[in-house]
Parts: sequence; C-alpha cells; structure tokens
Amino acid sequence: MVFSVIGFMDLLGTIAFAISGALVGVKRDMDIFGVNILAVITACGGGMTRDIVIGKEPPVMFVNPIYVLIAVITANIVFLYLYTNRRLPGSKKALNALLFWCDTLGLAAFTVDGVFAGINIGMNRLFLCTFLGTVTGVGGGAIRDIFANQMPEIFWKNIYAMASVPGAILTVLAWRMLGSENKAALIGSLCVILVRCIAVHYDWNLPKVPKRSGQV
Amino acid sequence: MVFSVIGFMDLLGTIAFAISGALVGVKRDMDIFGVNILAVITACGGGMTRDIVIGKEPPVMFVNPIYVLIAVITANIVFLYLYTNRRLPGSKKALNALLFWCDTLGLAAFTVDGVFAGINIGMNRLFLCTFLGTVTGVGGGAIRDIFANQMPEIFWKNIYAMASVPGAILTVLAWRMLGSENKAALIGSLCVILVRCIAVHYDWNLPKVPKRSGQV
Amino acid sequence: MVFSVIGFMDLLGTIAFAISGALVGVKRDMDIFGVNILAVITACGGGMTRDIVIGKEPPVMFVNPIYVLIAVITANIVFLYLYTNRRLPGSKKALNALLFWCDTLGLAAFTVDGVFAGINIGMNRLFLCTFLGTVTGVGGGAIRDIFANQMPEIFWKNIYAMASVPGAILTVLAWRMLGSENKAALIGSLCVILVRCIAVHYDWNLPKVPKRSGQV
Repeated sequence: MVFSVIGFMDLLGTIAFAISGALVGVKRDMDIFGVNILAVITACGGGMTRDIVIGKEPPVMFVNPIYVLIAVITANIVFLYLYTNRRLPGSKKALNALLFWCDTLGLAAFTVDGVFAGINIGMNRLFLCTFLGTVTGVGGGAIRDIFANQMPEIFWKNIYAMASVPGAILTVLAWRMLGSENKAALIGSLCVILVRCIAVHYDWNLPKVPKRSGQV
Repeated sequence: MVFSVIGFMDLLGTIAFAISGALVGVKRDMDIFGVNILAVITACGGGMTRDIVIGKEPPVMFVNPIYVLIAVITANIVFLYLYTNRRLPGSKKALNALLFWCDTLGLAAFTVDGVFAGINIGMNRLFLCTFLGTVTGVGGGAIRDIFANQMPEIFWKNIYAMASVPGAILTVLAWRMLGSENKAALIGSLCVILVRCIAVHYDWNLPKVPKRSGQV
Repeated sequence: MVFSVIGFMDLLGTIAFAISGALVGVKRDMDIFGVNILAVITACGGGMTRDIVIGKEPPVMFVNPIYVLIAVITANIVFLYLYTNRRLPGSKKALNALLFWCDTLGLAAFTVDGVFAGINIGMNRLFLCTFLGTVTGVGGGAIRDIFANQMPEIFWKNIYAMASVPGAILTVLAWRMLGSENKAALIGSLCVILVRCIAVHYDWNLPKVPKRSGQV
C-alpha cells in the first residue's frame, strides 16, 4: 500500500520536476527541443545519475521510459500554454502552492526510491544509500541548472537538499531496525515532507558567510 | 561499402567537431591545453557518454584513441594557425560552407554509429537506440559548451539535434524492417543530412516562447 | 614505504582540494550545504570520474568514504572560521605557500593513484592510464568550477594539468620498465612536483591565441 502511495508521489514529482525544468528552459530562451530536454533531465536526471553510480546500465529511464514520456507530455503542455498565453494560469500564489506540494511529494518519493535502489541490489551502506537517495531527489534539478548555465539552486537557495538528506538517512535506519520496506518508506518520506514544510513555513535558510567587500 | 562511407564521414565529422571545439576554446581565451581538451571532448564526448550509458567501460575513445589523436592534431593545427595568423584562412563564406558539410556528414555518421552501438550489444529498444544515436551526435557539442561555461547551443540554436533524432529513429526502424545494417545506415544518415540541409536552406528554427517583459 | 608517503600526500591533497572547493563555494555565496558539496566534489570528484570511466561502480568514495569525511570536516572548519572571522588566518603569502604545497603534493599523489587504479585492474594502455592519472588529479577541480558556474581553471590558468600529464606518462613508463610500483610512484610524483614548482617559480603559462578585436 505504502509503495503504491510512493508510486503516486513519483508521478506527481515527475510532473512537478518537468514543469520546473520547462519553466527554466522558457526563461532561458530555449527552443521547444531545449525545453523538452530540460524537463526530462530535471525529472529523470537524478535517477540516471544514481543508476550510473551503482553500475545499473543502461539506466532505468532508458529501459522503461514511462517517466520520460510523462515529462515530455508535461513539457509540451507547459510550452504550448505559454506560447499561446504568455503567462501561467491562475493566481501566482495558488500555482506556487500547487507546485510546492507536487515538488515536495516528488522529492520525498524520489529520495525513498533512491535509497531502495541501493538496498535492493545489496548495497546497504549508510553513506552510499544516503547519497543515492539524495542524488535521486536533487540531482535532476542540479543538472537542469548546469544545462541552463546557472549555479545549481540547491547550493545556495532554500532548505531543499537538506530535507532529502535526513529523509534518506531515516529510510536506511528504519529499514535496518524495522526490516520493513513499507514502514521505512513511510518514515523517510514523512521526514522529507515535514522538513520541507517547516523550512518553508518559517522561511528557514542555511547559513552563508556574510559578504564583506574585498575579503576572502 | 556503406560502412566504409560511414567511416569516412566519421573522420570528416571528427575533424569538424574538433575544429568547432578548438574555435570555442580560442574564443573563450583558453590556453593550448584547454583548446585541445575542448576539441577532444567535442569530437569524442558524445561517444563517451553513450558508452557510459550502456556500461561499455572503459569507453571506446580510451581503448582505441585514434579519433582522440585526430582531434588533437586538428586542435593544434587550428591553434598554431590562429596563433600565427590571428584569423581563419579563406573567405568566411567558403569556410563556413566547408565546416557545415563536414559537420553535417559527421552528425549523420555519429548518429548512425550510436544507434548501432546499442543494437550490436542487443539493446534494440527504440527509445534507447534513438537516445544513443542522438547523444553520440550532439552530446560532444553540449559538453563543449558546458566546459566553456555557455548554454549548450543545441537547446536554443538551429535545427541540429532535431536532425539527429529522426535519423536515429529511421535507422532503428529500417534495421528492424529490412534486416540490413548497410541499408539502415544509409537511410538514417541520408535523413540527418536532408533535414540539416533543408533547415539551413530555409533558415528554419524551432519555436520559442516569445519574450514579454516581466512574465513567466 | 613510498606508498605510505603517497598515502600521506593523498591526505594533504584531500585537505588542500577541500579548502579550495570550500573557498570557491564561499566566494560564490553558497550556503553551508553548497560549501560542503563543493569541497567533497573537489577532493573526490576526480577519483569518482576515474572509477566511472573504468566501470568500478560504485566508485571508491562511496564504498570507503574516509576522504569524503576528511573533506567535510575541512569544509566545515573553513566555513566556521570564515563565518566567525570573515577572513583567512595568517599572512596571505604564508597561507598561499602552504596551500600551494598541499595542493601540489595532492596533485602528485592523486595522479599516481589514478594511474595505478588502471594498472591494477589490468588496463595498462598508456593513453588510458595517462587519462586516468590526469582526471584523478585535475577532474575534481574541473567539476568544482562547473558546479560554481565558472569556466574550469585548468583550461586557462597556470601550468596545472600539464604537470599532471607528464607525471602520469612517466609513472606508466617507469612501471613498465622497472616493474616496481614504488619506483614508478616515486618517479611520477617527483615529476609532477618538479614541473609545478618550476612553472610557478618562473611564472610559466601555456600559450594562448592573442586577442584581436572582432577576429576569430
């Protein structure tokens, strides 16, 4: 049951990630091909990186391209809508809230997926699985930004990767202690969602070194 | 016979891709080492990406570095020529036409090569082979641009990747229907060349979302 | 004995590379998460790239994350120090000299490590091993720059990669001729150190094509 919930969150996440990729592509003045590639890489690039790191080649996205297809459909709907209307539908606030929730559920699902991609092939070291969970969750957005020639947002903006990391760690630990994939997935994804919500609600950001002219 | 034609087109393509990499390196004020690396990655980076995706490690470029050598020789000729003369030889128009043809033949050959790299190890799914053909054709140029800290041209400029994609699809379908590598390679590469020529002749570009100040 | 010296140089190199990554992260206004990732990727990204190229998956850094841990500790010390003091300790000259030596010893050790990573799994071709040595030495810094959205320094600044390349070649040749890992490691690393020192002492740079307005 939990895993079909995770499957549904995967779907929402894929759509949210593809929208974010498509919007960055449009902002950066890409053509429809670039917008499609950016949507696909945002949605599937994290999982692709994970699969290359664990030697699962070709990566899942190429063998079973259902999420690629969903990302492409999403990208073209976004492109056609903006091409026709020049602006996104609805109030900006409602849209942002919708995207926030899809994105957050997607981040949670992708993180849990990444952890189990490691565990299921017998690689259950804590550090490796935490990395696999986090890179599956945030890697696509990082590649999107590199392709769009901008500094990856996860390095300077919001609590995003730092919601994925504790979620991934908790998933591994819960799986080890409880021996249940369902419970571990539930605990891990709730952790990601909770941290994201609290961080956005209180407008938390990670500390930076304050700028002082001419220093460093 | 067709495959030795493809081999010749590979050679032209390697030289054209290496020249394009070397020129970007010089434009971006790189030193001779950077110019060489940019030429090699433009010529061989697509094939390297393809090999990593299908788990063929180490990639062909490291085991049989003949194309690396050709790219390095090309890069140093370009560098020395520009170092001495400060400008490219001949009329700009004739040079662009020459580079266009080498580049187009190279794109066609690399696309077909990429498709058969997948087919020859038994991975003959349409989506995977299309990706392998396209990434072999356009991946090197994309990595070149990322290394040069500029947005990949394939995302915003000309019909380039969109000549490779239908060529790759046709190669797979022709191979499936005709059972002949030669015929499939011929059909696929002709498709790439044709689309490129038509697109350049009519100055086609893929659609973009028109800019409106403050939107998106 | 030589290999425990190399091990010590690895440690110094990891710290120096992590400091360089952390400083770039702070300069580019990243938060503490970004600073940590940049430190880790600078210290371990070269080895990770090498492992993916030779199909050693998951890469060593995930299986035995001791150098990741060292990089993380280093990054947080740098971050906390700058957060509190806003500037680096000591005289700028002394600090630069210290960093130069750690970095140079690290470059030498990483280069030799990379060569033997290839040799030890039976891949002893000269070109492949030279690439493996060089990418282990300079790849982390290149990924750091791409993540920080700036053109990789190795393409335009100083004799850096060009100290690693001859060191890697010498390591392979010495190992082939002398049959001793210790001697080959010694010769290769001395070569890297020597080239770096001479290049910095005489302020050598690789040639570039001089700029002329409107050309190329």
